[in-house]
Amino acid sequence: MGDADTTSQKKNDLPLTYADYLKLQELLKCQRMSSAMHGPPVHDEHLFIVTHQAYELWFKQILFEVDSVRELFRSLVLDESKTLSILNRLNRVVLIFKLLVDQFQIIETMTPLDFLEFRNHLATASGFQSLQFRLIENMLGLQEDQRVKYNQQHYMKVFNDPESIQLLKDSLIRPSLFSLVEKWLERTPGLQVNEFNFWPKYQKAVSIYLNENFLFPAQKETDTKQNETMMAEYQKMMDTFQSVFNPETHQTFLDRGERRLSHKAFQGLLMISLYRDEPRFNQPFQLLTLLMDIESLMTKWRYNHVQMVQRMIGGKVGTGGSSGYQYLRSTISDRYKVFLDLFNLSTFLIPRKYIPPLTISMKRTLSVLSNEQNATSDDEACNEEENEHPPRPNGEQEKENVLFA
Amino acid sequence: MGDADTTSQKKNDLPLTYADYLKLQELLKCQRMSSAMHGPPVHDEHLFIVTHQAYELWFKQILFEVDSVRELFRSLVLDESKTLSILNRLNRVVLIFKLLVDQFQIIETMTPLDFLEFRNHLATASGFQSLQFRLIENMLGLQEDQRVKYNQQHYMKVFNDPESIQLLKDSLIRPSLFSLVEKWLERTPGLQVNEFNFWPKYQKAVSIYLNENFLFPAQKETDTKQNETMMAEYQKMMDTFQSVFNPETHQTFLDRGERRLSHKAFQGLLMISLYRDEPRFNQPFQLLTLLMDIESLMTKWRYNHVQMVQRMIGGKVGTGGSSGYQYLRSTISDRYKVFLDLFNLSTFLIPRKYIPPLTISMKRTLSVLSNEQNATSDDEACNEEENEHPPRPNGEQEKENVLFA
Amino acid sequence: MGDADTTSQKKNDLPLTYADYLKLQELLKCQRMSSAMHGPPVHDEHLFIVTHQAYELWFKQILFEVDSVRELFRSLVLDESKTLSILNRLNRVVLIFKLLVDQFQIIETMTPLDFLEFRNHLATASGFQSLQFRLIENMLGLQEDQRVKYNQQHYMKVFNDPESIQLLKDSLIRPSLFSLVEKWLERTPGLQVNEFNFWPKYQKAVSIYLNENFLFPAQKETDTKQNETMMAEYQKMMDTFQSVFNPETHQTFLDRGERRLSHKAFQGLLMISLYRDEPRFNQPFQLLTLLMDIESLMTKWRYNHVQMVQRMIGGKVGTGGSSGYQYLRSTISDRYKVFLDLFNLSTFLIPRKYIPPLTISMKRTLSVLSNEQNATSDDEACNEEENEHPPRPNGEQEKENVLFA
Amino acid sequence: MGDADTTSQKKNDLPLTYADYLKLQELLKCQRMSSAMHGPPVHDEHLFIVTHQAYELWFKQILFEVDSVRELFRSLVLDESKTLSILNRLNRVVLIFKLLVDQFQIIETMTPLDFLEFRNHLATASGFQSLQFRLIENMLGLQEDQRVKYNQQHYMKVFNDPESIQLLKDSLIRPSLFSLVEKWLERTPGLQVNEFNFWPKYQKAVSIYLNENFLFPAQKETDTKQNETMMAEYQKMMDTFQSVFNPETHQTFLDRGERRLSHKAFQGLLMISLYRDEPRFNQPFQLLTLLMDIESLMTKWRYNHVQMVQRMIGGKVGTGGSSGYQYLRSTISDRYKVFLDLFNLSTFLIPRKYIPPLTISMKRTLSVLSNEQNATSDDEACNEEENEHPPRPNGEQEKENVLFA
Repeated sequence: MGDADTTSQKKNDLPLTYADYLKLQELLKCQRMSSAMHGPPVHDEHLFIVTHQAYELWFKQILFEVDSVRELFRSLVLDESKTLSILNRLNRVVLIFKLLVDQFQIIETMTPLDFLEFRNHLATASGFQSLQFRLIENMLGLQEDQRVKYNQQHYMKVFNDPESIQLLKDSLIRPSLFSLVEKWLERTPGLQVNEFNFWPKYQKAVSIYLNENFLFPAQKETDTKQNETMMAEYQKMMDTFQSVFNPETHQTFLDRGERRLSHKAFQGLLMISLYRDEPRFNQPFQLLTLLMDIESLMTKWRYNHVQMVQRMIGGKVGTGGSSGYQYLRSTISDRYKVFLDLFNLSTFLIPRKYIPPLTISMKRTLSVLSNEQNATSDDEACNEEENEHPPRPNGEQEKENVLFA
Repeated sequence: MGDADTTSQKKNDLPLTYADYLKLQELLKCQRMSSAMHGPPVHDEHLFIVTHQAYELWFKQILFEVDSVRELFRSLVLDESKTLSILNRLNRVVLIFKLLVDQFQIIETMTPLDFLEFRNHLATASGFQSLQFRLIENMLGLQEDQRVKYNQQHYMKVFNDPESIQLLKDSLIRPSLFSLVEKWLERTPGLQVNEFNFWPKYQKAVSIYLNENFLFPAQKETDTKQNETMMAEYQKMMDTFQSVFNPETHQTFLDRGERRLSHKAFQGLLMISLYRDEPRFNQPFQLLTLLMDIESLMTKWRYNHVQMVQRMIGGKVGTGGSSGYQYLRSTISDRYKVFLDLFNLSTFLIPRKYIPPLTISMKRTLSVLSNEQNATSDDEACNEEENEHPPRPNGEQEKENVLFA
Repeated sequence: MGDADTTSQKKNDLPLTYADYLKLQELLKCQRMSSAMHGPPVHDEHLFIVTHQAYELWFKQILFEVDSVRELFRSLVLDESKTLSILNRLNRVVLIFKLLVDQFQIIETMTPLDFLEFRNHLATASGFQSLQFRLIENMLGLQEDQRVKYNQQHYMKVFNDPESIQLLKDSLIRPSLFSLVEKWLERTPGLQVNEFNFWPKYQKAVSIYLNENFLFPAQKETDTKQNETMMAEYQKMMDTFQSVFNPETHQTFLDRGERRLSHKAFQGLLMISLYRDEPRFNQPFQLLTLLMDIESLMTKWRYNHVQMVQRMIGGKVGTGGSSGYQYLRSTISDRYKVFLDLFNLSTFLIPRKYIPPLTISMKRTLSVLSNEQNATSDDEACNEEENEHPPRPNGEQEKENVLFA
Repeated sequence: MGDADTTSQKKNDLPLTYADYLKLQELLKCQRMSSAMHGPPVHDEHLFIVTHQAYELWFKQILFEVDSVRELFRSLVLDESKTLSILNRLNRVVLIFKLLVDQFQIIETMTPLDFLEFRNHLATASGFQSLQFRLIENMLGLQEDQRVKYNQQHYMKVFNDPESIQLLKDSLIRPSLFSLVEKWLERTPGLQVNEFNFWPKYQKAVSIYLNENFLFPAQKETDTKQNETMMAEYQKMMDTFQSVFNPETHQTFLDRGERRLSHKAFQGLLMISLYRDEPRFNQPFQLLTLLMDIESLMTKWRYNHVQMVQRMIGGKVGTGGSSGYQYLRSTISDRYKVFLDLFNLSTFLIPRKYIPPLTISMKRTLSVLSNEQNATSDDEACNEEENEHPPRPNGEQEKENVLFA
C-alpha cells in the first residue's frame, strides 16, 4: 500500500489504520465453520468458506466494474473521453476472471471425503444461490429464455429475501451490457446508405470471394465425383453467407437463439472487424475483443466449476431429482454465451484482399488526423466517392501533420 | 489447427501435413541428452533441454514481435493505421513473458541432485550464452554501460561465431525500441511553446500543489519541532520536482544512469500520463503501459531465474571466481530497467485537480472528432488560447456529431 | 543455466556452447512461414508456428515422462524405491499441462482475420494430425471405442508414413498407464478374503449409512407425500450403491463405457481413498490424485482448444462435411476421460464415521513402523482379527520407536 | 458447492442459505471507500479495497493451514497418520501463494494517477500494518534480528491495539514451523554413531569427490598457470565443504545469519536429500520441497509487491524519511529467507556415484517392507553392517512380498 505523504491530512483525520480502512475486524469474523457448531470443526471447511468468500468478493468487484462500464457506455455519445476507462475496466474484469479460473486449483485440494464431513451441515445452501453470479449474468445480458432450468425450477425461486429479488428484477430491467453494445454497433459509421453503404459492398465482395475460391475451381473440375463434392461445398458456403445477408433468415437464427445481435448491429460488428486498423475502429475493436475474452473466461470458469463439482460429488443424484453435475454441464453450452455472435463472427470474414476498399471520405472519417490536414485533403479529393483510397497516404506531404499518431 | 476450406488449393500443392508444416521431423530430433553420450541417460536432462528450447522458441517469437514493432514505429509518422498492430504485438509479448515466468515452475521439479548428474557434461555451456536473450535486451534498449560484468568479462566475449557477433553488433547499431519511443515522446503534441506549452504550466501546477499540501500547512504549524519536520518534508518534495524541472539536474541523473529519457521525452511522458483520457492520448498511454508491463515481466523473469539458479547450484562458486547466483542477482536491480522512467513516473504525478486544464484548441487537437463538427467548434472558440475548456462539451449539440466513439 | 565447476572436464570435451548443446542452429531454423513461400509473409503465421511447436516440444516431454512412469510402474513390484520418482514425474506432467492450458491465451492474440491470411496455405494440414497428441491419449489409455469419429474417419487414417502408423500401433499394444494402474489397484492390500476382506465390510457400512441417513428418517416421516419423496430418494441411493456392489451391474456399466476399472480395481480405489491417511496408502493416494489432475487438465486443454477454434474459424463447415468445432466439442465429454472412475468416485464415499475400522493387523500392514516395534506390537495383539484398532496408538510406548515419521 | 443429500438434516436446522452460510451480508458490507466520505467516490478505490481484502482473506487461510501443520508436526512423534495431511496442507499453501502472486496483475490495472486520487484519504494506513502478514512471517520462523527496520522503527510499533500486540508476542513464543522442522531434522534416522553414522561417511565421500574431480586433474596439469587456477579452485571447494564439516565454522555462519539450521539438523537435511528415494525418506523429501516452494513463492510475492509499489508511488520519499520502495526491496534479500539452508543445500550435494552406499540394516530401516519379509531378509544378512547393499533386491524372492508398494 505504500506510505502516504500526508502530513497535511494528519491533523484532520483520526489516525486511520490499515485494519480500520479494510474493516478487517468485520471481514475476518465472517468465517464461521458450520461443522464447529455441530461438533469438532472439520479442517477443510475453512478453505471451503474462504474460497467462496474470495469468489464473492471478486464477483462484487466485477459487478462494480461492469456496472460502471454500462454507465460510461450510456454517456459515450456525449463524452468521448470515456473510451480508455471502458477498455481499462473491461480488461480488469478479464484479469479478475483469469484469477477466478485459477482459483479452482486451490479448492480442489479439498477431497470429496473431506467435503463429506461437513457437507450435510450446508443443508440446503448451494452455489446455485449466489446472487451476485446471477446479477453478473443478467448485467452482461444473459437472456432469460436461454437459461436451463434446474430441477424444473426458475433460478429466481431460490431467493427468498425481497432485497435479492428486487436486485434481480432491476438487473433485468436496466439495459444490459449486451443491449448497450448492440445499440452502439448499430451506430457504426459507414453502414448508412448515404455514407459508405457497407452492406451491399460486403455482399458483392463475398460473392467474388466464393466464385474465385469455390465456384470456378469446381466448374473447372472434370472428374464428376470431385465436381459434385466441390459444388456441394460451394453451395454450403453460399447458404452460410446467405443466412446473414438475408434479414429474414437472420431473424430465424435470432428466434432460435443461435444468434443474438440485431441485423444492423451484426453489420456493424463485421464492419469494425474488417476495418479494425482504421484509427477510429481501433478501440471499438479492442472493446469487442475484451468482451469476447470476458465471455470466454466466464465459460472457462463454468467449465472448471463443473470439473470441480464432478470431483467433489460425482454423479451423485441431488435432492430434487436431477444432478448438479448434469445441470452445470448444460450451462457450458453456447446457449449461455451472451456475445455468441462475436465468437461465430469468423464464419463471415473474408480474406483481406477481398475486403471492399474504403472511399477517401470514409477513410477520413475513420482517421484521427487533425483538422488542418483534413481540410487539405478535402481539397484534393473532390469526387472521392468513386475513388478507392490509395494504399498509403502521400508520406512527404503528411509527415509534418501526423505529428504524433 | 482447424480444417481449412481449401478445395482450390488442393490441386496446386502437394498434400501438406501438420508434421511437414511444423517441421516436426527436424524439431523433435533436437533433444540430444549429453548424458546419453557419456553413459546411461539421466532422465531429467530431457526436461532441462526441452525447457530451454521452449525458452529459445519463445525468445525467437519475442524478437520477431519487437522487431516488427520497431519497424511499425518507424513508419508511424507516415501511416497511422499501424497503431493497433503495435499495441497487439506488444500485448502478445506481455503474454509470452507471463508464460515464460510461469515456466520456471516446471524446471524447478528437477532437483539439484538430478542436475548434478549431468551438469558436468554441459561443461562450459551456460545460459549466459543465450544469444537471443542478449538480442532482446539490446533490441529493447539496454545500454551497454548499464550491464554488470560477469567474471570481469564482457557478455559479447562468450560468443565465438562471427554470425552471432554480427547479430549482436547490428542489434546495437539499429535503433532500439527505447530510442524510437524516446523520439516519439519528444514529438508529443502540446509540448511546443507556440502550442499548449505544457512544461511551464506543469511547473506552476506543481508549485500550487506543493504550497497547498506541504508549505502552507507547515507554515501554520505552531509546534516548532513539528514545523521543522514538515518544512523538511516540503523541501524534499521541492528538491524532487526541481530535479525534473531543471534540465541540468535531469542531465545529471541521466549521466548517473538513474534516468533514461531525454528531458523533452520526459515531458511528453508526463503530458500523456496526465491527459491520457483525451482520445488521441488513449493509445499512446496504452503503449506506455504495455512497455512497463513487458519490462516488469522481464524483471520477474530474471528474478525467477535467480531463484531457480539458487535452488540448483546454491552459492557454489563458479569457475571464473564469481558466483552465477551473485551475478544474476545484480541483474534484477534498476540498472537493467530500460524504461526505468516509466516506473518512476509516479513520483512526478500530481492529483487530478491540480492538472492544468487544456485549452479548447488543445482539447480539439487531442480529440478524434470528425471535421465537420470541429469546423463548427472553431467558430465558437475565437480567442480560445486563454479560455479553459469547459469540463464537458455541450451534449445537445454534439450528440449527432460524435456518431461513434 | 548456471556455471559449471568443470575445470576437470574442459580437457576431455571440445568446448560445448549453449547453442550447440540445445541444437539451436537446427531448432531455430524450423520456423518456415508458408505465406512467405506464396507471397508476402503474414506476420501472425510466425506466432502460429511457434505456438504449435512449443506444444509439440512439451508433448514430447509429456510422452517421455509418462513412458518412464509406465516403466517405473512395471518395476514397482520389484523395487519400491521408485515411488518418489513416479510421483515427481506425474506432478511434472501436471505442471506442463497447466502451462499448455495457459498457452492458449497467446495464440488467441491472433485474430480470425489474420488467420484467414495464411490459412489456405495450410491446405490439408490440421491439428487432427498431431501424432504426439494421439500417442499421449493412447499411452494414458484412451480406449479406441470411446473415440469420436471425425468426418466418418478413424484418427489413424490421417497418418500416411509407416513410422507414425507403427508408433500408433505400438502405443496400443504396450500396456497403457491406465491398465498398469488398474492391475496395481487390484493388488491393493486388504482386499483379500483372508486379509482384511474390505468389500463386505464396506457394503455393511454403506447399509448402516443409508439406513441412518435416509431410510429411518423416511420411515419416521408421517406426512405421506414427504414420506414418498424420502423413500424414493433412499431407493435411488440404494440403486446407486448396488450398481457397484453387484459385479454384474458393474460389468454393465463397463460395457456401456460409463465405468472403466475392473470390479477388483474399483475396490482397491475405494479402499485407498477411504484409508488414505494410513502411511502405506499415502503415496498411492497422491498418485491417484495426480492422475486425476492430469486428466482434468487434459480435459481443460481440450476445452480451451475448442474455445480457440470457435474464435478462429467459427462454425464454418469443414471440407469433409462436419465442423471442426463440433468434433472438438464432442471430445470434452466424459467419453474421453480415461480415469473417469476417479472422478466419479465421490459418489461411493461415505462419511468418516461410517468407514469400517481397521483391524490391528491391517493397521500394522499399512504402517511404516520399523521391525522392532512391530515385533513388540505383535505380542500384544494376539487375537487381533476381531479387535478394532484403537483410534490412536498408545503414545507413551511408541514415542521412542517412531523416531522419525 | 453442489447440492447436499440432506433430507435428514432439513428437520433440525432452519433452512440455511448460501448467503447466510458465507455471511455475505456482513462480508459485502466491508467495502467502504474513503474517497466517498470526502467527496465523489474514486472508482479505483473499490479495486484497491477488494484486492487487499482478498489478500487478507487468503492470509487468514494460510495462517490456518500453517498453524494446523505446526500442530500436526507436534503430534507426529506420536501419530504417523498425519503425514499426508501435512503434505496436503503445505501444498495448499503453495497454491494459495501462487494465486496471491498472480493477483498483483489485477491491482496493477490501477494507475498511479488513480491511486493519487484517494491516497491522501488513506492517511497513515499502510500495508506495513498488515498484522496477518507479520504473523505468517513469525509462524514460519522469521527471526527478529533478520528483519530490516523501517524508518528506524520496529514493525511491532505500528500496532496499537492490545489484541494485535498479544497475537504477535504469542507468535514469537510458540514454536515456529522452522524450529519444529529443525528438531525433526535432528531426529533423522541414520545420523547416530551407533546407527548408520552418516556424517563421517559423507565427509569421506566428499573428499573422494574433490580429489577425483579437482585435486588429481590439477596435479596432472603441467601448465603452471593453469595448474595454479585449478589448485585455487580445488582449495575454494575444500573451504566451502569445510565450512559445513566443521561445527565451529558452521556456528560462525549461524551467528552471521548466513545459515539457519543447527549442525545436526543440517546433517539430517543432507541425509534426506541424498537418500530421498528410500521409501521412508520420500515424504520427508516432499515436505522439504514444499517448504522451499512456499518460501520461494513468498519471496516472489515480496518481489511483485516491490514492483507494484514502484509503479504506484515511484521513489517518492515517505513521511518518515525513508522510501517504502527501498524498504521493501531490502526484504527480498536472503535475510528474509527462513529456510535459507534448503536453498543453499545444493552447494553441498555430490554426484550420486559418490554418495555413501547404505548398509543393509539402514536400507531396511528406510524401507516400508512388511515384517514378514524383513524377517526373511534378516536371516540372509548376518554381518550386514560391513556389507554394502546390493544395487537392487533380488526380485524373484521379493515379488510376493512387496505386494503393494
